[in-house]
Amino acid sequence: MYSVKELQEIIIAEIENRSGKLKKLEPSNLYSPVNYSLEIGGKRLRPVLLLLSYNLFSDDVKAALPAAVAIEVFHNFTLLHDDIMDKAEVRRNQPTVHKKFDENSAILSGDAMAFLAYKNLLECKSEGLINVIKLFSDTAIEVCEGQQFDMDFETRLDVSETEYLEMIRLKTAVLLACSLKVGALLANADNKITNQLYEFGINLGLAFQLQDDLLDSFGDQNTFGKKIGGDILFNKKTFLLIKALENCLPAEKTELLSWINRKDFVAEKKIKAVLDIYNRLNIKELTQMKIEYYFQKSTAILQNISVGKNKTEALAELSNQVLKRNH
Amino acid sequence: MYSVKELQEIIIAEIENRSGKLKKLEPSNLYSPVNYSLEIGGKRLRPVLLLLSYNLFSDDVKAALPAAVAIEVFHNFTLLHDDIMDKAEVRRNQPTVHKKFDENSAILSGDAMAFLAYKNLLECKSEGLINVIKLFSDTAIEVCEGQQFDMDFETRLDVSETEYLEMIRLKTAVLLACSLKVGALLANADNKITNQLYEFGINLGLAFQLQDDLLDSFGDQNTFGKKIGGDILFNKKTFLLIKALENCLPAEKTELLSWINRKDFVAEKKIKAVLDIYNRLNIKELTQMKIEYYFQKSTAILQNISVGKNKTEALAELSNQVLKRNH
Repeated sequence: MYSVKELQEIIIAEIENRSGKLKKLEPSNLYSPVNYSLEIGGKRLRPVLLLLSYNLFSDDVKAALPAAVAIEVFHNFTLLHDDIMDKAEVRRNQPTVHKKFDENSAILSGDAMAFLAYKNLLECKSEGLINVIKLFSDTAIEVCEGQQFDMDFETRLDVSETEYLEMIRLKTAVLLACSLKVGALLANADNKITNQLYEFGINLGLAFQLQDDLLDSFGDQNTFGKKIGGDILFNKKTFLLIKALENCLPAEKTELLSWINRKDFVAEKKIKAVLDIYNRLNIKELTQMKIEYYFQKSTAILQNISVGKNKTEALAELSNQVLKRNH
Repeated sequence: MYSVKELQEIIIAEIENRSGKLKKLEPSNLYSPVNYSLEIGGKRLRPVLLLLSYNLFSDDVKAALPAAVAIEVFHNFTLLHDDIMDKAEVRRNQPTVHKKFDENSAILSGDAMAFLAYKNLLECKSEGLINVIKLFSDTAIEVCEGQQFDMDFETRLDVSETEYLEMIRLKTAVLLACSLKVGALLANADNKITNQLYEFGINLGLAFQLQDDLLDSFGDQNTFGKKIGGDILFNKKTFLLIKALENCLPAEKTELLSWINRKDFVAEKKIKAVLDIYNRLNIKELTQMKIEYYFQKSTAILQNISVGKNKTEALAELSNQVLKRNH
């Protein structure tokens, strides 16, 4: 069995190696943005989940590496296109692809990455490959649906908690779940365990996205990597804002809506005012409880997977890391 | 054996049926542009090629229909994203998707179409399916490369004929070739024939794109469907312009470059002036000869395919239709 850290090192080296090769391909205006996008880095969470899952059944993780790369390439493709749609200028403290290059490059290089992901998947030799490709394609469409719901929410003030949870399930959770299931499918694991790993991923993904919402408003500027309060400034329909709109008294609602509708404002003032409302409504604690709920659910599923308790310890460790828990 | 017309009717009905179902899916802001893009129509050339190819080996064309749909969905995805990149406002006499909806919808719906194409492919039950998916993925990346070369050429005046031919091979010809080869792979045809069909498609595709270049400058306004002279107005590096720059005398070159570099001009005057230069240099005849060269090459390959002469007649008929030949 490999540790989380070992698998992280393996996948980082593999992506670096492949990205370096892509950089040499022509036309360079197509492949340079791909290389840039892959080299910016990130936690490589999804490929590590895939390898951890595969490693539950086989120690030959090299055989699953191309699929792990595929998932990361796909994930970066979604970031690339999402950043164009959201007009985001910075990601991971670097200019986004459409800022560094241009919008056309970002569209087309993103497209190429979607197909490169399939090419990577197709390198895997496994009886389960067709099922892997099916799951991957279904997941990719769900991720597009999630992004569309997220954009649809921008012009709405009546998004319900249920709608929000369905949106983050599609936009974030299914890809974590897919990564875990692909690992199991490649290893020809039995159906029951494969589906348990998928469900574990869905719950982990929901907790993960809620945590991301929470950190955007209540995180530590130094460790968060981007500016605190971005979601508040852009009126993003996060779990926090949805619960605040749901739970506030009429006077607070008027105040909250006036900040949402205001065109001219001092950024720091808006952030402080909205955070004040969140604090009065205990939104932070409410969100933490929801995170804890999905985390506990994911843990329970993980403990029920019949592969031997010790084997799932690395997955439990990664969950804790991702959710920034110290216990 | 089916006729070209019969297969056209079959694929048109199938796309209409599937597109109607997509229209009902949520989020509608994701699926409406997909439905719009598929229902605008077009010749359905690629899926018909795929079915004709499959029909050389089997009469059960229904089994290949999902792959035929996949190729058309992919083709429309490329049109959708290309139209954003080219800032095109009209396609097939209708507003382009990013004009009818908006740019974000066009990006995201295009992405969804890329994955829908794979889902369609995966419906096919065939031993050759993995090879089909591999070929499709390789082809998709080549099409992205072709589009990038085409965009790179915009800022260049020294594009050679060889570079141009490689660009249209990637941007246009490989997808026609892929359609033909997928038909053969699904029918488990032998390697030699499968590759001959691919080569037939490459040569047909090159002739087809050259014909498209020719019609943009010398076509009949009534039958061409878009305004004559668009390529000239935007200085597109077509075969015609490349040959004109290559063959012209110094005085003509000065005139041609002055039109290319001019920012303010009357559209009709620029078109007329450039056409005059083309006429003096016999560019029309030169292009027709090149089209004839690739058409003859494609015909020779087709005649060599050992499936019985009568069987390839429908493919020969379609080639003639596509190249608007009356003999």
